[in-house]
Amino acid sequence: MPNTFGHLFCITTFGESHGGAVGVVVDGCPPRLRLSETDIQPDLDRRRPGQSRIVTQRNEADTVEILSGVFQGRTLGTPIAMIVRNQDARPDAYSEVKKKFRPSHADFTYLSKFGIRNWEGGGRSSARETIGRVAAAAIARKWLRETLGVEVLAWVQRVQAIEARVDPARVTLRQVESNIIRCPDSSTANRMISLVERIRRQGDSVGGVVACVARGAPPGLGDPVFDKLEADLAKGVLSLPASKGFEIGSGFGGTFLKGSQHNDRFIARGGKIRTATNRSGGIQGGISNGEDILLRVAFKPTATIMQKQRTVTARGSSAVLEPRGRHDPCVLPRAVPMVEAMVLLVLADHALRQKVLR
Amino acid sequence: MPNTFGHLFCITTFGESHGGAVGVVVDGCPPRLRLSETDIQPDLDRRRPGQSRIVTQRNEADTVEILSGVFQGRTLGTPIAMIVRNQDARPDAYSEVKKKFRPSHADFTYLSKFGIRNWEGGGRSSARETIGRVAAAAIARKWLRETLGVEVLAWVQRVQAIEARVDPARVTLRQVESNIIRCPDSSTANRMISLVERIRRQGDSVGGVVACVARGAPPGLGDPVFDKLEADLAKGVLSLPASKGFEIGSGFGGTFLKGSQHNDRFIARGGKIRTATNRSGGIQGGISNGEDILLRVAFKPTATIMQKQRTVTARGSSAVLEPRGRHDPCVLPRAVPMVEAMVLLVLADHALRQKVLR
Amino acid sequence: MPNTFGHLFCITTFGESHGGAVGVVVDGCPPRLRLSETDIQPDLDRRRPGQSRIVTQRNEADTVEILSGVFQGRTLGTPIAMIVRNQDARPDAYSEVKKKFRPSHADFTYLSKFGIRNWEGGGRSSARETIGRVAAAAIARKWLRETLGVEVLAWVQRVQAIEARVDPARVTLRQVESNIIRCPDSSTANRMISLVERIRRQGDSVGGVVACVARGAPPGLGDPVFDKLEADLAKGVLSLPASKGFEIGSGFGGTFLKGSQHNDRFIARGGKIRTATNRSGGIQGGISNGEDILLRVAFKPTATIMQKQRTVTARGSSAVLEPRGRHDPCVLPRAVPMVEAMVLLVLADHALRQKVLR
Amino acid sequence: MPNTFGHLFCITTFGESHGGAVGVVVDGCPPRLRLSETDIQPDLDRRRPGQSRIVTQRNEADTVEILSGVFQGRTLGTPIAMIVRNQDARPDAYSEVKKKFRPSHADFTYLSKFGIRNWEGGGRSSARETIGRVAAAAIARKWLRETLGVEVLAWVQRVQAIEARVDPARVTLRQVESNIIRCPDSSTANRMISLVERIRRQGDSVGGVVACVARGAPPGLGDPVFDKLEADLAKGVLSLPASKGFEIGSGFGGTFLKGSQHNDRFIARGGKIRTATNRSGGIQGGISNGEDILLRVAFKPTATIMQKQRTVTARGSSAVLEPRGRHDPCVLPRAVPMVEAMVLLVLADHALRQKVLR
Repeated sequence: MPNTFGHLFCITTFGESHGGAVGVVVDGCPPRLRLSETDIQPDLDRRRPGQSRIVTQRNEADTVEILSGVFQGRTLGTPIAMIVRNQDARPDAYSEVKKKFRPSHADFTYLSKFGIRNWEGGGRSSARETIGRVAAAAIARKWLRETLGVEVLAWVQRVQAIEARVDPARVTLRQVESNIIRCPDSSTANRMISLVERIRRQGDSVGGVVACVARGAPPGLGDPVFDKLEADLAKGVLSLPASKGFEIGSGFGGTFLKGSQHNDRFIARGGKIRTATNRSGGIQGGISNGEDILLRVAFKPTATIMQKQRTVTARGSSAVLEPRGRHDPCVLPRAVPMVEAMVLLVLADHALRQKVLR
Repeated sequence: MPNTFGHLFCITTFGESHGGAVGVVVDGCPPRLRLSETDIQPDLDRRRPGQSRIVTQRNEADTVEILSGVFQGRTLGTPIAMIVRNQDARPDAYSEVKKKFRPSHADFTYLSKFGIRNWEGGGRSSARETIGRVAAAAIARKWLRETLGVEVLAWVQRVQAIEARVDPARVTLRQVESNIIRCPDSSTANRMISLVERIRRQGDSVGGVVACVARGAPPGLGDPVFDKLEADLAKGVLSLPASKGFEIGSGFGGTFLKGSQHNDRFIARGGKIRTATNRSGGIQGGISNGEDILLRVAFKPTATIMQKQRTVTARGSSAVLEPRGRHDPCVLPRAVPMVEAMVLLVLADHALRQKVLR
Repeated sequence: MPNTFGHLFCITTFGESHGGAVGVVVDGCPPRLRLSETDIQPDLDRRRPGQSRIVTQRNEADTVEILSGVFQGRTLGTPIAMIVRNQDARPDAYSEVKKKFRPSHADFTYLSKFGIRNWEGGGRSSARETIGRVAAAAIARKWLRETLGVEVLAWVQRVQAIEARVDPARVTLRQVESNIIRCPDSSTANRMISLVERIRRQGDSVGGVVACVARGAPPGLGDPVFDKLEADLAKGVLSLPASKGFEIGSGFGGTFLKGSQHNDRFIARGGKIRTATNRSGGIQGGISNGEDILLRVAFKPTATIMQKQRTVTARGSSAVLEPRGRHDPCVLPRAVPMVEAMVLLVLADHALRQKVLR
Repeated sequence: MPNTFGHLFCITTFGESHGGAVGVVVDGCPPRLRLSETDIQPDLDRRRPGQSRIVTQRNEADTVEILSGVFQGRTLGTPIAMIVRNQDARPDAYSEVKKKFRPSHADFTYLSKFGIRNWEGGGRSSARETIGRVAAAAIARKWLRETLGVEVLAWVQRVQAIEARVDPARVTLRQVESNIIRCPDSSTANRMISLVERIRRQGDSVGGVVACVARGAPPGLGDPVFDKLEADLAKGVLSLPASKGFEIGSGFGGTFLKGSQHNDRFIARGGKIRTATNRSGGIQGGISNGEDILLRVAFKPTATIMQKQRTVTARGSSAVLEPRGRHDPCVLPRAVPMVEAMVLLVLADHALRQKVLR
């Protein structure tokens, strides 16, 4: 079931970028949660293309419809199916791609795997697939907030070499949403935006890092061994298009410290057992310890660029790929809700698992 | 099933560091593979403690016994159960740990999750749990080599700030095993060993990076969406004790490049479609493209150090943890076979999945 | 994932009897299979209500729409989502059910489980849920026929005490579809139809037995131990609404024989190893042996009857349930495509599993 | 994972009848349950061969060893691995079987599936595999009894045509264990025993029906759609060796009634909502309703008989199989703890699932 994620809060996505619809089935959402499309649409709006001048101009409303699982405004405990119709299909824009493999895209590998591929706009490898994830995660978000007080927030931490200064303990959604690059450090945000605009004019693209914090997660989420919380988080975010790396807590940087510097000393504070520092990133032995969960995700520069590129055809002949179609010079602003989505889905799943032990 | 990994080549590990035994059940190993304990013991020997002066001195032979699934030297297609008895139990060495939470260990989180914990040596959070993984992966290694010609090799790429120069396309097992730090760049290896010895004398610990290459994987392994090959690899290695980060291909470093610099141009070579560069790390759209699969894993400095540390008891009282027991100043050499194990298990699982499409 | 069935040919159904839509996501259908709605609609038409005077009169076209997974008439290897809109919603017909528990329906148990229930027409417990199964199974049917030559056919074997004589080796779809009760023994069929019409006039209902044969399944399908072919078949058909029993091969009747009478002697015929008799029902040790797979399913008399019934309200007060709404005096004709569906899904799943061993 | 059963209370069995050991890993047993081998051995003793003159004489103590998951007499919430060593290996007794397919055994189908088979005593298809199930179920039994007050009890209801009269609401373990056939109706038990002894002297075998009741299960266990409680029970018992049929509640017999006769009227009794009759067998819409759960399982006459049988070799040559080895003229007494085991495992799994909804 390679299109399914999670065990108890379990989602299955479907749909290609062109064709009838994209969507998701959420199996395992607890019953009696108040829910309607208005809980879901805002996160989809943050994800959709065409929001600003620095992201792709594919322009679709991405209006979600709930098909099942909700009765008189409350969840039934049965599967919640949601769809978003595809509208902006322009298959002619992709005729060249039919024959040539786009560099660092999935054209060659899909054909290798399946012996067939949907050459219209990426098919299943399109970021459009994440609509289902974001819609499902909006439900997870509501449930986590209402039952556990958990809040998940991501932002653009770095674009190429321009890095923001952000306090994960205090950053707010409003700050993140205050600019089109989704970086809560506003002066850095401006520099990032200028860079992306310059890159766009060059027909090129840039990557960077999205950071994410989950605040309010109780101790006890995550399992020993394979389903460690950080392992599931890593799988979740590495399953996003264009992601290339993952760090929990101190990450790669922590490897330059000694154990005596890196260890998080336990302290008692407010009647609770806490840690004085948080290099663990809120997870120890694969299980949340009640501190903020902190992670970072590397996103490569977008593969689609508005420059001529050399490549080959399916028969191995040399070819030149002309710049064509739409171009997203920097996926980072739209990756923000996607990273949140995966973190929310992992937390909701483990929060349900933890109920089994109660 | 949080102690299970994989879908078709599927393993379930069991066992605490102290108690009867640790082990694994491998469900899904193809039938008719020649197999005996001699195929498995060498990888366990690379993993076990007490191999050299720079790793922990817990001294156990870790001799594996196959309990089922093999008949007259060949696998039956039925579950292969393997166990390694625990021998070096010294519960008295852990009496202090019974009451105090060790910093950056799993004591607090296990108790938070389960309401009980095995305070003898880490229980299930001990690296001893990885015996089952390494044993299972030795079978995966044999099958991958014999049926697909796949070879997986890891090494210590960096200890703290000391980084090796290694060519992933050419590095050999013999080079990796030529020194006790498992770094194939021998002059750098010597500097790493000196550092670890100095750190050990300080009662401290260091971390670093393990790199891994999989050579010979055919195009087509991995699934679109959630079970992308890099997502499963990330989950696999982040489920190893002490790991804090993961990179595939260009990883975090690649985020400093522009798309025009980062894209891997397709070329035809030797009748095959290849890429001129390999920033993708052998995976595009979640599916292997036939190039070397390249990944790196960050390991934090070991949490156990031979220095007094401040902490709290389960009741929240301040306490001092005395240095005691055994000490592994640098997990990296022993992490090498563990990283290989997770990569092998992921590849074997996806190689079996790919047979479904044929 | 209680709404998911299968491992490799894996389906997830969604939808209530009233509300937006019912549907299914098929994950794991092999790529490159020719497929369009016209392959699916015929089986849905056999399942839908309102086909004849002896089944429920709910009248919906049940027109299927494929939302994803098919490109230019061929499957992509990606999830195939299909929906059927609900049209004939008459929630007022159910206002009485809002307060009173219908005898032998799921009203009480759903409320006990979820703390909420959709009282409009059964919600998720409605036979309307099987639309997704039948649609998915139509794909399985096509794939099994084209790749393995497997044919699955069910029929009404018994209505109450009226039992048909049918040769499973020779019965045809045309014979089954030649009358509205779906019994290929035409004189018996007439008696069955008369019985059902008499029962309908009484406002009562009857049950019976559906038999099913799978012809052409190769040896080797099914797994030892838990996923024995008959175990998965039993689970599949017992998950259908109103089913109460399952038999494979000789079933309960075989328990009256001695081993010397019951054993299926092996013989060589046409260069193949066959059995002289088939009391095993085509499965030995959980694995198909190449003979016809034979099973029977008991369906209880429909719980909805057009007679006054005593019951209680959710608060435990005595109440009388008035006859109201639509009435299906005998589910058996419509159960025929449902039984086929579950058998097809199980066979397709195990056929894919078997490819892993090749 | 065809050797795994259950989702939250999840077991994986391993082992062949000859070779190192058989065993099980239980993943998901709740933490803090008091547990030792003495909780498990009694059920294994009921299952083992050589208990009486009417079952097979293979004589093994079947002593269980817990390898992991228990610390100071309590479960840790980590996997509980248990093994039983094989002792009574007599491979020479099976040399004939090496070449000839035993009628109605799994020799031919295993070879068809895997291309290899363990011809020593049935290998994985041996009833010895059920040791792991029974051991795991003993834990489920303890947990269900202590936390929910659930009791599961099976007995021999019928041997060939000799049927017992038993009141499922009142039958006790002591009554069941009072005779060697495990039939609580003592006069019928004597006739059954006489029959089995006569059949044994003929070198033949008989089958029959095992009935089972689960008392005390709360309303709410089981899921709509595929994981209906009766569907999982059906799968569980049909995965037992030699089982051929399953009935829940009224089963096949209920199909002779009309709906007005079959429906279970709701009543209020003792402040609870109950049903006046229990033709549903304690399950409605796939979910337990708080009444006794009642099921029956058909077991065919044992395939191994002490009579010459005609068969073929792997090459298709005609052959005669001589009577040899050990012989179990009636599996029913030993099937009793096996049926209980599968029912316990299903109930424990669904009881844990239900905690997710609380």
